[in-house]
Amino acid sequence: MIITTVKELREYLGAQRTSGKSIGFVPTMGFLHEGHLSLIRRAKAENDTVVVSDFVNPTQFAPNEDFESYPRNIERDEQLATGAGADVVFYPSAEEIYPRGSSTFVEVAGDITRVLCGASRPAHFKGVTTVVAILFNIVQPRRAYFGQKDAQQAAILIKMVADLYMDIELIVCPIVREEDGLAMSSRNTYLSATERAQAVILNKALREGQAAFEKGEDNVEKLIRQITGKINEAPLACIDYVSIYAYPSLKTIETVSDKALAAVAVRFGKTRLIDNIILEK
Amino acid sequence: MIITTVKELREYLGAQRTSGKSIGFVPTMGFLHEGHLSLIRRAKAENDTVVVSDFVNPTQFAPNEDFESYPRNIERDEQLATGAGADVVFYPSAEEIYPRGSSTFVEVAGDITRVLCGASRPAHFKGVTTVVAILFNIVQPRRAYFGQKDAQQAAILIKMVADLYMDIELIVCPIVREEDGLAMSSRNTYLSATERAQAVILNKALREGQAAFEKGEDNVEKLIRQITGKINEAPLACIDYVSIYAYPSLKTIETVSDKALAAVAVRFGKTRLIDNIILEK
Repeated sequence: MIITTVKELREYLGAQRTSGKSIGFVPTMGFLHEGHLSLIRRAKAENDTVVVSDFVNPTQFAPNEDFESYPRNIERDEQLATGAGADVVFYPSAEEIYPRGSSTFVEVAGDITRVLCGASRPAHFKGVTTVVAILFNIVQPRRAYFGQKDAQQAAILIKMVADLYMDIELIVCPIVREEDGLAMSSRNTYLSATERAQAVILNKALREGQAAFEKGEDNVEKLIRQITGKINEAPLACIDYVSIYAYPSLKTIETVSDKALAAVAVRFGKTRLIDNIILEK
Repeated sequence: MIITTVKELREYLGAQRTSGKSIGFVPTMGFLHEGHLSLIRRAKAENDTVVVSDFVNPTQFAPNEDFESYPRNIERDEQLATGAGADVVFYPSAEEIYPRGSSTFVEVAGDITRVLCGASRPAHFKGVTTVVAILFNIVQPRRAYFGQKDAQQAAILIKMVADLYMDIELIVCPIVREEDGLAMSSRNTYLSATERAQAVILNKALREGQAAFEKGEDNVEKLIRQITGKINEAPLACIDYVSIYAYPSLKTIETVSDKALAAVAVRFGKTRLIDNIILEK
């Protein structure tokens, strides 16, 4: 079932809540793939009613980014989401989420939003935290599900929920990958055949970094150098960043002593891909 | 009953909610006066369970302002609040509301936060919207009560709730005044006897402005000039602003055509007082 307005969704969820049903929520930008479906299945296993939002949020795209071309297919999304256990697909217009004159923002300040993707996408996470706060207030779920693929987003949202005392449990689920290791992403559809073949280098390089770490290398600079070198073996790869930070604080470290996030962003032509792996002793 | 931790408050309110009770919420900075008590009475009349928060929020004070000296008296507050119908007084520490590393903000952008008190207190409303969002998430009330005395704050919070789709009804209650017309305020205790006698000029000037409006004067500049002239009759009065804006948008107007807010901020020595009146055709 597709619902497009806040009013209808609230009526539906109000009735669910009155009859004691727990609500699980999976916010997405649509064009669902196996990664999203794994979140929906988990949400259905842990809650009575599952809401999937399907909203390409304009405020998290910069003017030069791919908001217009971002892939969309609501009919297919509804089929896939329902098949995975969703009870409702919430598919609002931009005007429904941001009515005329809307000017309230939720922002997580500090390094956590400045490093990694925050460096090249300065307004991105403010758009993410604002839309997620709005969606949380509309859906009022008991649990919400996010993918580890967007590790920085997950860390920021965990912080937002804690700092603002939102009464919601966030659950971060593992990255789902193609057979060759490429992390699933709606943006993978942008890749040409040659780019697609080379894109596997992100995961390969991260796994090599992890292997080196497991053999005893804990120097962040050396690990970054190794991952960078591997990615550069792919002729079309243009690195945005290769970074290692403490996880989930995203604080700067020189040595991996506890839990750390190794994360990469790499462009292939116009397509920007991200991937990451957790290093843990 | 005083509760000081979020955990205890959530346990108490969870039980209330489970037994079907509606929750009304009155956020205050304590040192309760008849204005606060009128909000608590109304909350009790319209809800089963009433929570009053008593928290002098540090983030809405600038370094040069009166955070340290702001009057406090939790024992008296509990007595007064309970007498007016409060079931719980939530009295958290600053560390409880802002645990170490807390860095998430809620901000309403635009003229609404830049005019009036926003001009001389640039970070004030960001502190207000953040703490109110946190308190709303902790208490999760059906209705929350604010005084018209802080008219700009009320307008901003109404916008925050609408923009972020918070599922809470905001109710703005009339200003409660001393017998001579001075608007009740915890800060009135700062006034010397001479200042206190002259402070009545805020309300007098606003009422004269309203009388002129009702006789047909709708030119904003002329109304402001008249109110300003009247306030300046009090020798100790030092005007911060005398302004008229559309209400509740706080947009600039030249003529009062619909609903407008006439608002003043005036210093007496170190004490800054505010007052306002609605002009409506």
